[in-house]
Amino acid sequence: MENCIFCKILDKAISCHKVYENEFVFAFLDVLPMSPGHTIVIPKEHVADVESISDELLMEMTRVFKLIGKAMMSGLEVEGYSVFLDNKSAANQHVPHVHFHIVPRKEGDGFERWAQSAYDEGEAEFVATKISREIE
Amino acid sequence: MENCIFCKILDKAISCHKVYENEFVFAFLDVLPMSPGHTIVIPKEHVADVESISDELLMEMTRVFKLIGKAMMSGLEVEGYSVFLDNKSAANQHVPHVHFHIVPRKEGDGFERWAQSAYDEGEAEFVATKISREIE
Repeated sequence: MENCIFCKILDKAISCHKVYENEFVFAFLDVLPMSPGHTIVIPKEHVADVESISDELLMEMTRVFKLIGKAMMSGLEVEGYSVFLDNKSAANQHVPHVHFHIVPRKEGDGFERWAQSAYDEGEAEFVATKISREIE
Repeated sequence: MENCIFCKILDKAISCHKVYENEFVFAFLDVLPMSPGHTIVIPKEHVADVESISDELLMEMTRVFKLIGKAMMSGLEVEGYSVFLDNKSAANQHVPHVHFHIVPRKEGDGFERWAQSAYDEGEAEFVATKISREIE
């Protein structure tokens, strides 16, 4: 898709450091890593977000992040990794071409998750129902 | 598995607010949400981490987070969501039963990603090779 930076990488109009590719999926280093080896996994087809991608293609992206995570742990000698996917601009999805980030992790690297807080009385049940009733 | 808090939830020894379940996967609210509706997706089988889970079961967990994410957006009227998975204790995986977090997101919610920094000259190529050569 024109103006999509990830499509430009796929078209080789923008260079990258490739980590892996197969018929459906491509993976390359984030140019601004959170830790060395931080990899982005994308479908070769331009798909904006999780709502637009087929189950099969998203599942194939998952199979690939598992493959890369394992290679990361042996190749980079790290002890773990974090995977994340931000869906939609409200979630800070900066490039509208669906992607997983895989970030190599080490004990004591200081990466912190977002703050958590408890539900008010009765709120959790109310919220769970609001989600579950939308699932067919 | 004994002493696994998620297995205790599956066994109903610990209560939870269920969001979804099928034959293979179970989803429930995190008791300490990052935002209301924050959901955890787990396999019903006890599997510690990504290296121990079958491709098929991890892919089924992915299909389910897609389903729940969509329900979250319509049911909670949020505009997006973030998904993450921390693999191994070095990545702050606190419960050794593989799980995705799905966190509802709103524009301007202030959730920030970890800091990023550029590679030194030649470092990216070196790092990409160290990962890619481990993939069969």
